[in-house]
This record gives sequence, structure tokens and C-alpha cells, in this order.
Amino acid sequence: MYRIKCTLSYDGSKFFGYQKQPNKRTVQGELELAIKTIYKKNIKVHSSGRTDAKVHALVQVIHFDVDNYIDSSKIKFALNGFLPLDIYIKEVVYVDENFHSRYSNKEKTYLYRIKKGERNPLETNYFLFLKHEINVEKMIKAIKYFIGEHDFSSFGTKLKNENNIRIIYDAFIKYDENNIDIYFIGSGFLRYQVRTMVGSLIDIGRSKFEPENILDILKQKNRQKAGKKADAQGLYLFDIKYI
Amino acid sequence: MYRIKCTLSYDGSKFFGYQKQPNKRTVQGELELAIKTIYKKNIKVHSSGRTDAKVHALVQVIHFDVDNYIDSSKIKFALNGFLPLDIYIKEVVYVDENFHSRYSNKEKTYLYRIKKGERNPLETNYFLFLKHEINVEKMIKAIKYFIGEHDFSSFGTKLKNENNIRIIYDAFIKYDENNIDIYFIGSGFLRYQVRTMVGSLIDIGRSKFEPENILDILKQKNRQKAGKKADAQGLYLFDIKYI
Repeated sequence: MYRIKCTLSYDGSKFFGYQKQPNKRTVQGELELAIKTIYKKNIKVHSSGRTDAKVHALVQVIHFDVDNYIDSSKIKFALNGFLPLDIYIKEVVYVDENFHSRYSNKEKTYLYRIKKGERNPLETNYFLFLKHEINVEKMIKAIKYFIGEHDFSSFGTKLKNENNIRIIYDAFIKYDENNIDIYFIGSGFLRYQVRTMVGSLIDIGRSKFEPENILDILKQKNRQKAGKKADAQGLYLFDIKYI
Repeated sequence: MYRIKCTLSYDGSKFFGYQKQPNKRTVQGELELAIKTIYKKNIKVHSSGRTDAKVHALVQVIHFDVDNYIDSSKIKFALNGFLPLDIYIKEVVYVDENFHSRYSNKEKTYLYRIKKGERNPLETNYFLFLKHEINVEKMIKAIKYFIGEHDFSSFGTKLKNENNIRIIYDAFIKYDENNIDIYFIGSGFLRYQVRTMVGSLIDIGRSKFEPENILDILKQKNRQKAGKKADAQGLYLFDIKYI
């Protein structure tokens, strides 16, 4: 048996998310179809984690196991030939059996992209457009409260009987006149956590609540206390690190 | 009667081009539908000219005539409310009856966007990706031969019994390590002219023929002599000027 690790990127616009679902166009579904075309059998693909519908990946990592050895550059070429244009395999390498795309993962970075001003119809799948004025200074102050080890139940879909504690190693905002790019680097994230943190930052930028309130909301462990989750199309899985 | 001029932009990816066609999703079709929703009657929309399927417009200009006066900012707001996300009305103004989006047009600029290197799945609708090496210096030398007044029959769809002479006021290339952006500013263009000029420039960049050959090809007035037209998705209607 050989284990193959692939690094890929995809445009989430036309996918019902990463995870395979019957009769829906999904990233996993397309990957397994292309792999089946090469290896002539059904092979299950494992990923670093799901992304939701319309969420993009600049970097996603998957692995799968095969019986016969094919040169990795040929696998890359063949996969990119069979895959649709909105998925691209950047790298194919053989790894040992201890590697697991999900369990070996040590760090993930998400990027959320906001544009200020009027909607650009060529970019509606790639940004959240905000027409109204927003106070970025307040958002920068607020985002620091997310850094560290916290129970993020207030900001994501709570896992029953499971640990909702996650570590955010760093979180920061890059911005200019037109753009606000929000980065979160962490050990892992609950479902909807990044989008809910972004939604809350937007609320703070609009003075619906104050930067310091982030700490109270974290403490309450109650999803109803945070802001609404920001739209999916501005979110990018940006980087994934393994030891 | 009031004449309304709108400046808009659109993402061509999911349109069968600008011009209305039965049972196809077109820009004109969507515009007329939105206008009908506001004015409760069928109103024909005139444009500066068509764009083909998958071709984008950073600027397109249309006009149409209405019977009753509505504040232009309200028209803009209503149109953007009714239109799909891949079309955006940037400006609405009332103009006098002498204005015609097509016949008053004095100058158009097209941009063609090329990226070098591996395909980015998030940008396949917006660039031509070129994997192979290309000599941009040769392309820069060649593009100058298009400037001036020429019969462009070799580079576009010839109009029978009509004038195939067009003036290119300027044509130039902006580039860096990863991008080649090709601009053509002219009085007007034949169908497929810009994409065929770009295809020929790419052939020259790959040394299939030489910069000087552009002049011979122009002289021959024969579509078979030029390069193949470049893919639609890299083309943008970039600007439109009226006196």
C-alpha cells in the first residue's frame, strides 16, 4: 500500500462544500471521481477538514491510499487533466502511513476578505462587499481578544460531549482604503467559527458592540450572544501546517 | 420621452454573451427583465456593442427610453436590486435624445489578461493561463504594427459589403513576472478582432512567426493567415468613450 498526499486549491463558488453528498457537486466527490478514473476503483479521500459551500481553499490537503505505484508527477498531470477547472492539484507526494491529512494537522490559517464600497460584479464570489462605513481600528482592537486558548462555543457550532476549546495562535487584520483582510491562525476551528468571529468583528466595526465585549461573549458559551456569521464567499482556507 | 444612459459592469462567465437570445442567459436579457420590473412594460435596451460569451465588461454603456421620470439614483438602486449579482449598474444619468450608446461611441478600450505558470482554479474565468515560456519582448515589438488605420479583415469576422477598416489609436502591453496585460484602444473592432490579435501575439511570443509578419498578414486580408483567436475568458471591455 502507498499513501499519497496532495496539496490542492479550489474555487468554492460552484460547490456544495468539500464533503461528499449524494447528488450534489462537491470537492470530495470530484476528487474521488478523478482518482477512480486513474486507479479504476473506488478510493476514499481524506482531507484536513471540510469547507462549507462557497468557501474557497488556497491550500487544502488530502490523502488517499493506493495499491500500485505511479510516478507522482504523472499522478499530478492525470488528476489535473480529469478534474474540473475549479480544482487544481498543486503537489503530489508519497508519504508514510503515519501521515494523516486531518490528524497530523497542527495549524490552519483562514483568511476572510472584505471590500469596501460598491459591489464589483466580477468579484461577488470572492469578497464580502460592505457599503457602509466601518471602523477598522475597533476591529483591530477586538480581534486580539480571540488570541489564546478559549472555549469557542459562543462562536461556532458546539460539539455535544466534545471539547470546544481551540487555540488561536494569532489573528490580525491587513487593510487599506478598499480592502479588509482578516487572518486567523489556529490549532483548529469549530464549524462556522471563523465566519462568526468575522461577523462579530463587523458588528464591532459598526459599533453595535465594543471590542471588550468579545471576552464576555466567550465566557458565556452561548451562540446567541455573538454576531451573525459572515457570508461564505469571503472565506478562504489559506494555509495548513504539519509538523 | 426620457432617454436614460447606464454605465455598468458584468462578469461574463455565466452569460451566453451580451446579446439577447431565446432561452439563453444573456446580459441584455437580464437588463430588459429588470427594466420591465420597474417600468411594467417591455423596453428595448441598446448597447455600445455586443460582447461574446464569457467576455467580461469593466465598463459597458447602454441606453433606453422611458415615458415617466424617476429619480436616477432610485433607478440605479432598483436596477441593482432586481439584477443578478454578476451585473452591476455603476451610474444612471438622463441624456438627450441625440445620445446613442452605439453610434455616439468614439473610442473603446479592450484589455486581455494572461497569467503565466500553473492554473489558479479561482481565476480560470478571468485569465488565459499559459504554462509555456513566452517572449514578451517580441510581443511588445509586434503589437505596435496594429496601431493605425488598417483593414482588419485578416484579424476578425469580415463584414460583407461593409467597411472592415478600423483605427487603433494605441496598443500596448503591461507585464511583470506573472502577468501579461494587453490593451487595445480603437475606434471600434470587428468581431473576434481583439482575441485574434492576441492569439497572433501569443504565436509571435512563441516564435511561430515574427513581429514584422503582422504587416503582411494585414495586407493579405485573409482570416486564415493570422493566429487562432485567444480564449474568451481573458477578454475585458475596459473602457468606452463618448465625446
